[in-house]
Amino acid sequence: MSIFLGLLHHPVLNRLGEVGSTAVTNVDIHDLARAARTYGVQTFFIVTPIDLQQMLVGRVLKHWTEGPGAERLPTRSEALKRADVVDSLDTAIANIERDTGQTPEIIVTGANLREGVQTFASVREHLQDSDRPALLLFGTGHGLAPGVIERADIRLPAIESPQEVQGYNHLSVRAAVVIILDRLFGVYE
Amino acid sequence: MSIFLGLLHHPVLNRLGEVGSTAVTNVDIHDLARAARTYGVQTFFIVTPIDLQQMLVGRVLKHWTEGPGAERLPTRSEALKRADVVDSLDTAIANIERDTGQTPEIIVTGANLREGVQTFASVREHLQDSDRPALLLFGTGHGLAPGVIERADIRLPAIESPQEVQGYNHLSVRAAVVIILDRLFGVYE
Repeated sequence: MSIFLGLLHHPVLNRLGEVGSTAVTNVDIHDLARAARTYGVQTFFIVTPIDLQQMLVGRVLKHWTEGPGAERLPTRSEALKRADVVDSLDTAIANIERDTGQTPEIIVTGANLREGVQTFASVREHLQDSDRPALLLFGTGHGLAPGVIERADIRLPAIESPQEVQGYNHLSVRAAVVIILDRLFGVYE
Repeated sequence: MSIFLGLLHHPVLNRLGEVGSTAVTNVDIHDLARAARTYGVQTFFIVTPIDLQQMLVGRVLKHWTEGPGAERLPTRSEALKRADVVDSLDTAIANIERDTGQTPEIIVTGANLREGVQTFASVREHLQDSDRPALLLFGTGHGLAPGVIERADIRLPAIESPQEVQGYNHLSVRAAVVIILDRLFGVYE
């Protein structure tokens, strides 16, 4: 089981339902790198096609892995060493192929995904037995563009409210990622 | 089952292990209000003894529940209506007593909590059958002060890495809260 995580800033939907790009959020980098480290994700890809955003993320990562941040907060450094910034989903996939020698299985989820989904329990079991790398993708903004959903090998259901609560599916992408990592890889009694 | 959530900015530990206060973080307010709404939390208390911080949080909440934010993003408004800012844990408890007529059972967790803990499964089951309100407490900074831990009726274990991953327990408080809400109240296959 080797797990990769990708946070896409393009192609994602905006609030009008159009395909576009979002800006990288600093707290996403930190929170998701820490969660990736906790659950044993090999590389957390921050995906943005925008040069200036790539440079910005590169500077943040350098600050915490080689710069003053690394000395001040070594646990943060340990998490951010697993983060990487790439220009596209294809580059993330190519990097995984380079590092593992295999094409990753793509797993997606989204607040509106209800069709063709597998259960968390079945995907969890599948990943434990799998020799193939897996790439979990999440979209910022209003979620992954349809073209990304179509490339997926596995679809996870949306995170739903418990039945006795009136439904609400507007979690932050940060929350959705950590909940799904815990559902797929968390171990507790 | 009536569930309350409290995010404490005092009394919490700083990185030297001393009891102190932290500043409120805007993203905590949004992410945790959205998660609270998703999982059916009745009120999310943001606890800070600092007047100016209370005013700041009050302004943020007002913007999203009555101001321009409410119209622009009604789903955010729906979540932030459940958030409230109070000066102390005692005030949060007093508000719960006023609203429910009962003293809440206090539930705590923390990255270093290993002694006297109950399993997530047993606490989940207990809460489903309970007629008493429950107040889940989380500490910002380096976690809840010992005085708060001592007041708890129930302790939950720390969120641990899976066994095959070298241990790491430095999740953000945002991540810890949503993972624990999902472990206690999440329903999925």
